[in-house]
Formats: sequence, structure tokens, C-alpha cells
Amino acid sequence: MAQRVQSGHLLDSERLREFCSVPLQKVGMSPEDALIAAEVLVRTDLRGVHTHGVRFLPNYIKRIQAGGINSRAEFKVIHQTASTALVDGNAGLGHVASYKAVQLGIEKANHHDVAVVLVRNSNHFGAAGHYALMCAEAGFIGIVLTNTPRIMKVSGSKSRVLGNGPTAYGVPSRGAPIVFDVAMSVVAGSTILMAAERNESIVEGWIVNSDGLPTTNPNDMAAGGALVPIADHKGYGLTLLGELLAGALSGAGMASGVGKTGPNGLTAPNVPWNVGHSFIVLKPNAFMSLDSFKARVSVLTTEIQSSPKAAGVNRIYVPGEIEAEKELARIKDGIGFDDVTWNSLLLLAKEFGIVDMLEKTRRQ
Amino acid sequence: MAQRVQSGHLLDSERLREFCSVPLQKVGMSPEDALIAAEVLVRTDLRGVHTHGVRFLPNYIKRIQAGGINSRAEFKVIHQTASTALVDGNAGLGHVASYKAVQLGIEKANHHDVAVVLVRNSNHFGAAGHYALMCAEAGFIGIVLTNTPRIMKVSGSKSRVLGNGPTAYGVPSRGAPIVFDVAMSVVAGSTILMAAERNESIVEGWIVNSDGLPTTNPNDMAAGGALVPIADHKGYGLTLLGELLAGALSGAGMASGVGKTGPNGLTAPNVPWNVGHSFIVLKPNAFMSLDSFKARVSVLTTEIQSSPKAAGVNRIYVPGEIEAEKELARIKDGIGFDDVTWNSLLLLAKEFGIVDMLEKTRRQ
Repeated sequence: MAQRVQSGHLLDSERLREFCSVPLQKVGMSPEDALIAAEVLVRTDLRGVHTHGVRFLPNYIKRIQAGGINSRAEFKVIHQTASTALVDGNAGLGHVASYKAVQLGIEKANHHDVAVVLVRNSNHFGAAGHYALMCAEAGFIGIVLTNTPRIMKVSGSKSRVLGNGPTAYGVPSRGAPIVFDVAMSVVAGSTILMAAERNESIVEGWIVNSDGLPTTNPNDMAAGGALVPIADHKGYGLTLLGELLAGALSGAGMASGVGKTGPNGLTAPNVPWNVGHSFIVLKPNAFMSLDSFKARVSVLTTEIQSSPKAAGVNRIYVPGEIEAEKELARIKDGIGFDDVTWNSLLLLAKEFGIVDMLEKTRRQ
Repeated sequence: MAQRVQSGHLLDSERLREFCSVPLQKVGMSPEDALIAAEVLVRTDLRGVHTHGVRFLPNYIKRIQAGGINSRAEFKVIHQTASTALVDGNAGLGHVASYKAVQLGIEKANHHDVAVVLVRNSNHFGAAGHYALMCAEAGFIGIVLTNTPRIMKVSGSKSRVLGNGPTAYGVPSRGAPIVFDVAMSVVAGSTILMAAERNESIVEGWIVNSDGLPTTNPNDMAAGGALVPIADHKGYGLTLLGELLAGALSGAGMASGVGKTGPNGLTAPNVPWNVGHSFIVLKPNAFMSLDSFKARVSVLTTEIQSSPKAAGVNRIYVPGEIEAEKELARIKDGIGFDDVTWNSLLLLAKEFGIVDMLEKTRRQ
């Protein structure tokens, strides 16, 4: 659904960033943290990943107000060595802890070639790809994993066992950084949700119902169903790596210990998730000059892009290419949002008395 | 096809290991290197992964004889820092370079918490999971990637663009180490080959033919077809990470630059592959005691294993569990091989005058 057309309301990204930071500050965040969170959210929309952009803001605010997210969270390094750090996210917004964790990882990798930073006691961190992109833009390779509240079955299970935590990586290139960010379910939970809202049936194999059986009814999801991993044991095992690194090794919650989930799969807004995040940061210079590496990456991506195309295909993309092009265009032309997202922002603006500020984010 | 029943010939794993090392020595390998390669191959069969076990031995010998694999390869560290190393595999057998690279990675991670060792100028390294297992058994987390000769399409391409390099990881646990090892094609190349040999049709979606179209004819593969990645862009992007880390960053061949591949997808036996391998090794102690980590992993795996099961499912497995149980049983009872593998070993034994030695590997 990331590609669903967003259009009705064309907003300026810089002014939107400022706007988003205000409600976050009004519920207790420091200006610095609020701007970090706003930056991650708006840039995610700039890059076309609307599922993980500012549409989440009202939900975060609600969770802060309910006590599930700590707006005054400190970024606390519990333990560190030259090349590793373990961070307590202090039940804060995952975006802020992750942004700082990546900065710390880059600093460590810059001195010691490779670094691993783990965060525990965190909440939703938005788009994993953002942190991978941060690494790539700084000239580093980044690998990002997280766990999430459970929503997906595993091979052989009847019901939800693991979250649907994404795997992301970022790699510097001569052109746009390579940024890959996917979760291992056949389709995203939001796809099922949107089908349910629209009374559309779904493709068999996307979810199982509460009896563990395939179904085409999207309402079976909220009734205790589960997302299905791609390629069965492959998607299961790839997701498990996030649970092991970001969950088990960080000391965060694991599987059913993440958040407090109702039968509908939704987490209680007043209960911190206690998810973990894992950031592996690698300095290409440890192996060859950054320029040489970028040149080699470009040789590879050029070969991929210029491969013979299947019938009806105009262009072959490498991961992150579409997003980089969207970002360039939208910085210039504004980001289009549909009524649903606009109205949710408007409601938020009314709550905090900043409707004028929201209106001024409009490009036209 | 890893699960295809192997039975006719029950062989003793220790004697088989010794047997396998002899032809390798006779074509120039040092006893030490030959025993490393034999160990990797036989242990892979012990764990039931017959696709990547001793059935490859005759092919490796042929490649050594043809010049594609250097039996006298030195393990040469080109460049290293405290936490990284770049190794030239010297066109040797990938198993040997990888085994030594993992040992080096563990040593570095033991001192610096995390290490990345890359190998270039290498050949086929067998089962990626073996190196992940080595890490886990030593009390480390290992992530293994490699690139391979191209055989798989990418999203939008008509034909082969990338290899089908696996992703593996190993994680220590109180029980059997967690070992995950998969490639990102819908099915393995060997599955298509075996269907072709048996005149069976295949499921649409497993491969595309040389026009980039879906087909149920397995012979279309050798006629210029391509494997299909799981979940389209997801499998493509996951495979690309191996190409970027193990290929681009190591200085190895990339995409079409790996090996010399004929239209049938087979590589020329006289041309070194120049693939790269990537090993990321992480010391759990950097974050919590190894015992605490293993205990947490066991809590997680126990929750997974005891989840409600889908209809008809007797047991839910975590990655590496089936393999560990097979290994225990087969060390005791012997490894069963079918006629095809046995006959290929017999042919090899005849070539090197060691038929008696092969016969003595029999358990019955």
C-alpha cells in the first residue's frame, strides 16, 4: 500500500517537519528530540513510504498521552566497548533512540571499522530504511533489524508467534544510496486492514484465520488471524534473526513479551512495547577506499539496471532508487497526502491549537 | 531436495571424512586443507543437507584437475585491522578459505566484540550454514553471505542477473545452536535439474524461460531460463546484499563477473569463480553474559516450539533443530546415501585407486 496514490493535499516538507515537531513538544519532548522524530517521519513520506510516515504521528501522540511512550526518555548507554553499545531507550519513541544509536554506531565504526549498537526498551521506530539510509549517506554500510509485537505465524504454527520486524540495509553508491527495507510477511498488516475497511476480499495465502486456515476474508485478521511469512520457513527464519539480535541479545521483550496485544492484534496504547533494535555499521574503508567501493557498487547496479527487461517492463530498479527520485521531486514540488492523513493531522492540529500552522504547510 | 531420502548405502562419517580427504590430497591439497574440506562436506551430509555435501566432491576434483580450483591455494590476508580482515582465497576451494576466515573472525571478535572478514578470489564454499554453525558452537553469532555465478532473475529482468547466494546465520543456544541457511530463489537450481532428469513438470513460478516467461518445463532452465526470487523484490534485495558485501566490498567478481557461465547456467570447470564470502562475527558477551544470552534464546525458542500448531502439524521447529537431531543420529548410525552419490564416489575411488578405502566406510 506504500504506493497508494496520495494527492489531494500538497504539503511543503520543511514546514511539515516543523509542524510535526510541535505536538511532540507539547506532550513533553525536547525540541531536539521532537525535530529528530519529525525529520524521520517526514523524510519517510518524502521517499514515498507513506505507510510509515506522518500518518503515524497522531497514534504516537495518543500513546504518549496514554503512557505507552515516554516523551521525556533519555538516551542511556548502559554498556559500551570500542565497537559495541547497548542502549536503553527508556520507553521513548523508537525514532529518537534509533537516530542517536545510528549516530553512535557511525562514530564507533569510523574509529573501529565495524560497530554494533543495540537498543532495548524502545517503541515503534518507523521506517527501518531511514536508519540504513543514514549510514549510507555517511559513507557506511548499515544493517538494521528490529522486533515488533507479534502478528505473524511461523512454519507449522496455527497463530501469531513472531512480529513482522523488517530487515533493512543501506549501502553508499555513486548514485542514490542503495536502501532496502522489507518485512518478511507476504503482505503488510496495513494491506489487510485497508482491504477490511473497503470490504474487499484478499488473496488466499496472505493471512490465516484464527483456526490457522487460509482465508480470503480480511476481517479474519482482527478476529485472531495471522500474517503469513514469505516462502514459509525462509520468511520465518529471516524474521527470527531480528528477534534474536534486536530482541534476545539487547535484553528487550521477545515474541509475546513485546507490548501488550489484544486479540485484534493491536497493542494497548498505555503499555510500552519494549522492542529492541539492532544496528550493524561497517566502514567500507576497512576493505577499500570509499571511492573504489562506490565505483564498484555502481558497476554492479549499472549491470542490473541495464539487464534485458521482461515484456512490459520499462525499467529495472535497484533498491532505494525509486525512493531517491521521489524525494528529489517532492522536496521541490511538495508531498501529496490523501484526505485520511490530512484529516488526522487536522484533528491533531485542532487539539494543539495549531491549525494555522498546518494550513501554512500547504504548497497551493 | 535436501530432504530427498538417501538410504541405500550407510556410511560411517569418520571414515568417510578420511576417504574424502585422499583424492583432495592426491590432486595437490595439503593434508590439513584436505581434512578441512572433507570435514565441511561430511558434516553437511551428517546434518541432512545432501545437496551440499560429498556429492560435490567429484566436481571439485574435476575443477582442480581442469584448473578452475587451485589445490595449492594459500590463505592470504591482504589487509587487516583489529576487527576486520580482507582475505585472498587464491582461487582455492571456498570451504578451506571460509573455514579459516571464520576462525580468524572468531579470534578478532573475541578480542574486539565484532569482526568482519571478507574473502575474495574464492570458489564454491559448500553449505553457508556450516560457517554459521562454527560461530555458534564457539559461542558467537555468525552471519554468512556469499555471491555465486548468476542464475536468478531480478524484479523486471527477463533473464539471469544475480547468483543465488545464500544467507546464513548461527546463534548459540542452550540446546542445539540455531542455524539458518537459505537461498532466496523459490526453489533451488538442483530441484529444477532433478525434475528435468526425471521428465517431471515443475510448478509455474519456479523459473522463467529464456523469454522471461513463466513455464512448467524444467528443461527451459538449461535453455537459458532463470530462477525466480522469493516474493519478487524481497528475494532480489536480500540476494543483492550478498553481492554487495561478499562481492563488491571484497573486490571479488560481481554478477556476470563471477565464473564463466555457459547458456545452460553451468560454469566452465577451468575458470576460477572469483566469488566472495562475507562473515560477520559478533560476541554476545559484549551485551550480556553468554549464559544469559543462551538462556534468553532458549526462552524464545521454547515459546516458538510450544505455540499452538496448525492442523496436521506435530511439531514446530526452530532453524537448525532438525539438522542437529539428524547429526546426532547419523554419527551413531551412519549416513545413508543413494546410488547416484555412492556411484559417483565409487568412480572417484577407482580413479585414485582407493576403492577398498571407500568400501570400508560402509556401516553394513
